[in-house]
Amino acid sequence: MGIETKSISIEKVKTSRIDQIDFNNLAFGSVFTDHMLVCDYKNGAWELPKIVPYQNISLDPSSKIFHYGQSIFEGMKAYKDKNDAIFLFRPLDNHKRFNISANRMCIPEIPEDYFMDGLTTLLKLDSAFIPTNAGSSLYIRPFMFASGKGFHASPADEYKFIIACAPSGAYFAGEVKVLIEQTYSRSANGGVGFAKAGGNYAGQFYPTQLAIAKGYNQVIWTDDTEHEYIEEAGAMNIFVRINDTLITGPTSDRILDGITRKSIIEIAKKEGIPVEVRKITVTEVVNAAKAGTLKEMFGAGTAAVISPISAFGFKDTDYALPKLDTPYAQRIKKIITDIQYNKSDDPYGWRYKVTN
Amino acid sequence: MGIETKSISIEKVKTSRIDQIDFNNLAFGSVFTDHMLVCDYKNGAWELPKIVPYQNISLDPSSKIFHYGQSIFEGMKAYKDKNDAIFLFRPLDNHKRFNISANRMCIPEIPEDYFMDGLTTLLKLDSAFIPTNAGSSLYIRPFMFASGKGFHASPADEYKFIIACAPSGAYFAGEVKVLIEQTYSRSANGGVGFAKAGGNYAGQFYPTQLAIAKGYNQVIWTDDTEHEYIEEAGAMNIFVRINDTLITGPTSDRILDGITRKSIIEIAKKEGIPVEVRKITVTEVVNAAKAGTLKEMFGAGTAAVISPISAFGFKDTDYALPKLDTPYAQRIKKIITDIQYNKSDDPYGWRYKVTN
Ligand SMILES: Cc1ncc(COP(=O)(O)O)c(C=O)c1O
Ligand SMILES: Cc1ncc(COP(=O)(O)O)c(C=O)c1O
Repeated sequence: MGIETKSISIEKVKTSRIDQIDFNNLAFGSVFTDHMLVCDYKNGAWELPKIVPYQNISLDPSSKIFHYGQSIFEGMKAYKDKNDAIFLFRPLDNHKRFNISANRMCIPEIPEDYFMDGLTTLLKLDSAFIPTNAGSSLYIRPFMFASGKGFHASPADEYKFIIACAPSGAYFAGEVKVLIEQTYSRSANGGVGFAKAGGNYAGQFYPTQLAIAKGYNQVIWTDDTEHEYIEEAGAMNIFVRINDTLITGPTSDRILDGITRKSIIEIAKKEGIPVEVRKITVTEVVNAAKAGTLKEMFGAGTAAVISPISAFGFKDTDYALPKLDTPYAQRIKKIITDIQYNKSDDPYGWRYKVTN
Repeated sequence: MGIETKSISIEKVKTSRIDQIDFNNLAFGSVFTDHMLVCDYKNGAWELPKIVPYQNISLDPSSKIFHYGQSIFEGMKAYKDKNDAIFLFRPLDNHKRFNISANRMCIPEIPEDYFMDGLTTLLKLDSAFIPTNAGSSLYIRPFMFASGKGFHASPADEYKFIIACAPSGAYFAGEVKVLIEQTYSRSANGGVGFAKAGGNYAGQFYPTQLAIAKGYNQVIWTDDTEHEYIEEAGAMNIFVRINDTLITGPTSDRILDGITRKSIIEIAKKEGIPVEVRKITVTEVVNAAKAGTLKEMFGAGTAAVISPISAFGFKDTDYALPKLDTPYAQRIKKIITDIQYNKSDDPYGWRYKVTN
């Protein structure tokens, strides 16, 4: 069912700015489509969503978003096939996770129809912005934050739900070299690490900048007690391949339950790739690297898709990963992207057609 | 020295709204003074601060504050004595801590003169808003957040520093009953708990709401590994008195280095109160409560001043604190507030006069 699309009011831009976008030189998430979806939560209820020209948001200086980090987001992509049909990938899972994040951050849940009807209406309106060049896609950013006022450290009484979209190129340019973190941590047991809460990301900036200064692109987070268990990267879950087995850590209250991650696990099973979901220790990864049994490491996430890791650093030593002819990363990435761009069958039922 | 006050441009309100404020019924942080200080960071440098009428802030929907929680704040108070002279309490310590928080969150530091000259100029302009009723004060909120744009999870290139002020009543109305948390956590080892970063606060809302639903006002956070060490409360550090000894936990990368806390430690020493800074276990507090040697517990923070705790809950049992004739909490609170309101000497050099 869903809210009737006609109840989403639409105010169109007078002049599109699509001509200002260079689709052959897209950075990640830095130019935006003509419109955005906005929905306000007031007096204990969501008002009807509306689509308006992409524009500034005006907020009282005491809005709690500025003070208490009460915000969540999602990251999705829209894809076009050769007939210009529009597809999403497991979007209902993003909606579910959005509400899981909302609950942990004391933000009201957004109903499924507001999310899905709002999103598909927006995509149809701005469909010309969905890139078709290989490696590019339309990155979709649903987000929700505390707009309610006051300096009391307690949940706000008003919220804004917004969806904005950015035609985007690759998240990483070139090889990805990671540093296994031994000092800083991303999240606490019993904390908010499993939620896509704003504060989880700002907390990573400083340690990540330190790693970048040393020549790495990303930090691999470890547990905050011993720094001995591999957890995840900035915006990616992590897979390692030891001999022929693909391994990824279990999710927990410290780790985001990634949609790419769980898709990879299913694909690997179906492809007959031995796959294990279990704790991975830093010691075992370093030992496997030394013994030559560590064949691959890659990150998995909507923004970065599957990003092969070329080397990892641990305690002042760098360990290079071998260059394989047909790595799992490449094989699985092709299967996923072929489903996303409607280039193959979808035995999993993950592709979601945005119909007209 | 400081930036010349004349370089802070001032745009005054046409009509003050001071008449709309009921100074006899002040909530905490919900009505604001006429003006605010705003300072923008652009192209790698802070622009000159300006004072403008309190007004909405307009931001691009991709501003990183909405997505990545890149924000910090401080909490201070201004006090008036019987001659209407204005005082601050250890404001340079707030400035120092602000920059400590800024560094951890990859936010540029704000120079001391921008902070102090901006603040004192604002206070003189809005001095009529500083309440004089007992228990009320002007709560001051310096904050800084990522206004720069983009959906890439990395530090922003633009920031806003703002100071806004709210004439405020007491933070807690009545008795404070706390719950010693055994499931959720506030911060990780190697995390951002020691910073006044926005995300630290939103993460506390959900567990705090669960505690409120059970009849408590606040959660007492414990370590995220064993939930066995008492850390701090939502916006207060925690003191316990066992027999005649006052004890508070050491600060760490998980705990805010509170200015009220360190002032209390100094006062206690000077007053000849035995004081210990060491880890406090939940077991020892529960055992002391059972044995009748737990005499007091109180929270300490700028907003809540010194807030005596009437009872604590631990694993489905409530433990009431005894009612003493002259508790340390009351004795120390009088010493602190007498210094703040210029009612006594200030042997510590903590009072800071805002001169005309
Ligand atoms: C912290 C974190 N881990 C992992 C992921 C990957 O999740 P997904 O595959 O659902 O995009 C993301 C990005 O969404 C993330 O932010
Ligand atoms: C988490 C936390 N702990 C403790 C405190 C108390 O610190 P202060 O005494 O400097 O206000 C505060 C409030 O500032 C706080 O936010």
